Amino acid sequence: GSVEQGLEKTKELGCRTCHGKDGQGIMPIYPNLAGQKAAYLEQQLKAFRSGRRPAAQMSIVAKDLSNQDISDLAAYYASLKPCQ
Amino acid sequence: GSVEQGLEKTKELGCRTCHGKDGQGIMPIYPNLAGQKAAYLEQQLKAFRSGRRPAAQMSIVAKDLSNQDISDLAAYYASLKPCQ
Repeated sequence: GSVEQGLEKTKELGCRTCHGKDGQGIMPIYPNLAGQKAAYLEQQLKAFRSGRRPAAQMSIVAKDLSNQDISDLAAYYASLKPCQ
Repeated sequence: GSVEQGLEKTKELGCRTCHGKDGQGIMPIYPNLAGQKAAYLEQQLKAFRSGRRPAAQMSIVAKDLSNQDISDLAAYYASLKPCQ
């Protein structure tokens, strides 16, 4: 996926509201995404989209994502350094 | 939870086989756990245990975990530094 496209998509979706501007979740139950494995993130976004992984908020966020969106978002978060 | 107890539990359960000795998943679809939020890890382990979050392997791993085990495992992985 494309890191730049992924960054744009996070702005559109408001991912930072929960996952922070540096990919570090702002609340204890919101996971850190920075430096997470892209393939894992893709798998989970698809599971949220299909409902295979139940999640109140993420199912809404993922509902209309295309595979390209998912691949870009995963590439973006995987590109962030987990430790500033 | 207790980081030491958590470390012991990972040895008993073999978490390193997939999550690596430093909490960095050894395969693209195994998530990095190092420095992840403890509350998030607890929530997910409980979801694997109850089946609320379907996962072939993790449901087996989590099946017999007590709340204390879960709290210790979460504390352990949250204590690891994500960037060596």
